[in-house]
Amino acid sequence: MTKAYLSLERHFARLASLDDALGILSWDKEVMMPPGAAERRGENLAMLEGMRHDMLTAPHMADLLAEATAPADPWQSANLAEMRRQHTRATALPTDLVEARAQATARCEMIWRTARDTSDFASLRPALEDVLRLTREAAVAMGEVLGLSPYDALLDSFDPGTRQTDIDPVFATLRADLPNLIGTVLERQASLPAITPPHGPFPVARQEVLGRQLMRQLGFDMTRGRLDVSTHPFCGGATQDVRLTTRYDENDFIPAMMGVLHETGHALYDMGLPKAWLSQPVGQAGGMTLHESQSLLMEMQFCRSRAFADWLAPHVQAAFGITEGTPGWDGAALHRQLIHVEPGFIRVDADEVTYPAHILVRYELEKALIAGDLSIADLPSAFNDGIHSLLGLRVPDDRRGCMQDIHWPEGLFGYFPCYALGAMAAAQFRVAACTQVPGITPAIARGDFAPLLSWLRTNVHGRARSASMRQIVQDATGTPLDASAYLAHIHQRYVVGAADA
Amino acid sequence: MTKAYLSLERHFARLASLDDALGILSWDKEVMMPPGAAERRGENLAMLEGMRHDMLTAPHMADLLAEATAPADPWQSANLAEMRRQHTRATALPTDLVEARAQATARCEMIWRTARDTSDFASLRPALEDVLRLTREAAVAMGEVLGLSPYDALLDSFDPGTRQTDIDPVFATLRADLPNLIGTVLERQASLPAITPPHGPFPVARQEVLGRQLMRQLGFDMTRGRLDVSTHPFCGGATQDVRLTTRYDENDFIPAMMGVLHETGHALYDMGLPKAWLSQPVGQAGGMTLHESQSLLMEMQFCRSRAFADWLAPHVQAAFGITEGTPGWDGAALHRQLIHVEPGFIRVDADEVTYPAHILVRYELEKALIAGDLSIADLPSAFNDGIHSLLGLRVPDDRRGCMQDIHWPEGLFGYFPCYALGAMAAAQFRVAACTQVPGITPAIARGDFAPLLSWLRTNVHGRARSASMRQIVQDATGTPLDASAYLAHIHQRYVVGAADA
Repeated sequence: MTKAYLSLERHFARLASLDDALGILSWDKEVMMPPGAAERRGENLAMLEGMRHDMLTAPHMADLLAEATAPADPWQSANLAEMRRQHTRATALPTDLVEARAQATARCEMIWRTARDTSDFASLRPALEDVLRLTREAAVAMGEVLGLSPYDALLDSFDPGTRQTDIDPVFATLRADLPNLIGTVLERQASLPAITPPHGPFPVARQEVLGRQLMRQLGFDMTRGRLDVSTHPFCGGATQDVRLTTRYDENDFIPAMMGVLHETGHALYDMGLPKAWLSQPVGQAGGMTLHESQSLLMEMQFCRSRAFADWLAPHVQAAFGITEGTPGWDGAALHRQLIHVEPGFIRVDADEVTYPAHILVRYELEKALIAGDLSIADLPSAFNDGIHSLLGLRVPDDRRGCMQDIHWPEGLFGYFPCYALGAMAAAQFRVAACTQVPGITPAIARGDFAPLLSWLRTNVHGRARSASMRQIVQDATGTPLDASAYLAHIHQRYVVGAADA
Repeated sequence: MTKAYLSLERHFARLASLDDALGILSWDKEVMMPPGAAERRGENLAMLEGMRHDMLTAPHMADLLAEATAPADPWQSANLAEMRRQHTRATALPTDLVEARAQATARCEMIWRTARDTSDFASLRPALEDVLRLTREAAVAMGEVLGLSPYDALLDSFDPGTRQTDIDPVFATLRADLPNLIGTVLERQASLPAITPPHGPFPVARQEVLGRQLMRQLGFDMTRGRLDVSTHPFCGGATQDVRLTTRYDENDFIPAMMGVLHETGHALYDMGLPKAWLSQPVGQAGGMTLHESQSLLMEMQFCRSRAFADWLAPHVQAAFGITEGTPGWDGAALHRQLIHVEPGFIRVDADEVTYPAHILVRYELEKALIAGDLSIADLPSAFNDGIHSLLGLRVPDDRRGCMQDIHWPEGLFGYFPCYALGAMAAAQFRVAACTQVPGITPAIARGDFAPLLSWLRTNVHGRARSASMRQIVQDATGTPLDASAYLAHIHQRYVVGAADA
């Protein structure tokens, strides 16, 4: 182990402290900050990001990285590789381009926030064209440095090591099977007796108590994290201090409850990263696909299962003071609500059956945008055609079409596929975990997540960035990432209606 | 204006952003952070402080400061002087000494937290001796660089420009007059009918609503700040984002209410600093004495006046749902409670009459400790003698004696006098403001602080660090800082019982 490597560890530990500070300040911005502080906070965050960039790209960092030889320890070696990757990405783009892109996305996002409400695509278009132009420029430049295609260079920033060639076959299967599958699911659902959802009000204070109870049940350590409220739910914070948020609707407790379970999946990943490597690049979570797999594994795979619904029903009843035996409040009824499928326009509101369709549309479009095969002017109609071909719906306006998501206005191209890949990985992880550890399934039926969490700690969380997402999925499940486990899961839960799905 | 000066402004703006980050992270630590994150947060804060120190002491800063010539604009010129002051202080001490002192104070503070509860001075003594030894060493070294005596070098770190020679005559007057004054006040108080304090419970939620209402009444801008709960109340946060805290007792609403009014005084100062200079050294608040003068001006001078108590009483009644006309809840009764005087052992619980006695004792002792004329071993008995001679009380144990405050274990010598100087300045500011703007007094009787705030904006808040504390007091009041206004105020309110005191 070289002196240069040890020196790099110290430098990256300082960057990790700065990341922790940025994490808490960003959480505070969404959850605590008074509105009049927004402008100043924006400046503060930009300054800290700038300091972070300066520290990472300082000349002595390049010298140390050139000097360091790969340590024998595989984690140290992976750590050095990840340091090099982060340094290369940080230094790949000329400062002018970075700043121009930051300004263009900030401007576009601002326009989007008002133009979306009135479906005013014409107002958004010039700003979005700027963002796309500068993102393409950055993708080409980054790709040249990394030896990747422009789209792969973008993908790699959210999911290190993932390439378009990994995604295409997975998504091709989905594209082929999904429309028919959705049709079959809806047919069967229509044949079942109607659901009568329990009616509220469901006081926020009680929803909050229930949310915290479920977080603890899943294994969330309340001494190292918090639950709060924000407009857009997220999981953030810092190492050893994982903070999730939700938002409450007093007429329906299910969205907040499932949102908390989703974010708890993210949080358990962050809480399970190896302590010894918390301050180092290799100790970070392994990218967006793995992160999303962990939230979906909890929310979709386990917490919408019939067995968990049966365990959950009496706890929900107790939380809202419902008398035991009240019709419509048992596990069967709750389960019907949790697995209700309904094709719709809005991605973030979609059920797990129709969700991938939203991603397939966006994936094809953003590849075409980055390749220069699609113009922003043609985006709305191309988007609407895509939704129609996969979900059979006619998008009524751009607010519910290509303007619904913040990602593209923010310059986040290459991010969407991770959501669907995460759903695929979650299904694979569930099969593997429950096969390898037969005690997991009966434990979940008792509300006990400890055996599952133990498997995840070993096979996913504890590995951090010591291997690629693809490798971690392969090692944990014995097969490469593909759509088969996901499709089998949908078939079992929604077509067969298997009791253990 | 030189290029070097402009470059310095940019560097110091980055330091100000870092200070904002540290401010929010420190607030979060006391108010929001889950307990398991404490160790990591400690590391993060130390790392950011280290980065701040590195940035301030980087070689190019010295070069720029040497190169810069005083700009013609008086604020820019004061800004450059304050930059030089901060740089000189940061570079004055050898790193070894800074680190040894940081470790010694951290260790001593930790021991103090447990030893205090059992009055175990023997356990504290070695650690406190280390802190004193290293603080003296630092004071000597700092004093040599600054051309100041060791004690003045310490004073200057909390109150730029204030010297022992400014304090001694003020405190000599207090020392001569206070014991007799306290006796007279207590005699008169004993001659008045007994108070029957209203009894609770006073629900926290209602105390909180009342607190926020009073904050707004005084001029606190809720879009640029917050009120929360912490174990030790404070006013912190960042520029444009001023956050105060309090703690609640359901049996007595007065401590939290007066605490909020006190911290609001601090907050109004921070909110009133000149916007154009927020990111620069000259734009910061002008030291501890001025800061304390602002909290005491609100809490003690105005909010414990009879006129304000008369305005306040019906609002307090409404807050707690008390029927109008309930005996013991009118302005006269509330006022009696707000101005109750009782010599006691604990500084932070002291009323405004006996408070300076606590400071006089500490001031003499810490001067002697720094001069080497008093040993830590002799501190407890010297402390107890001091309290006896000024307050006539026999200190029963060190918990209620020299171990009650965190300041000395934390290495904060030279801090205490600012509290009493702040009380003197507050009395002077009140007289000056009410004389110069006759509308202030009748406005306060209507709960309207706007005319007062306007005077403070011009004469105190808006001046930031463009002049020394002494100069700001002199300019605002027409006289140098002294004890006369404070003593006259005590006499009017507590001996004469004047209606307008």
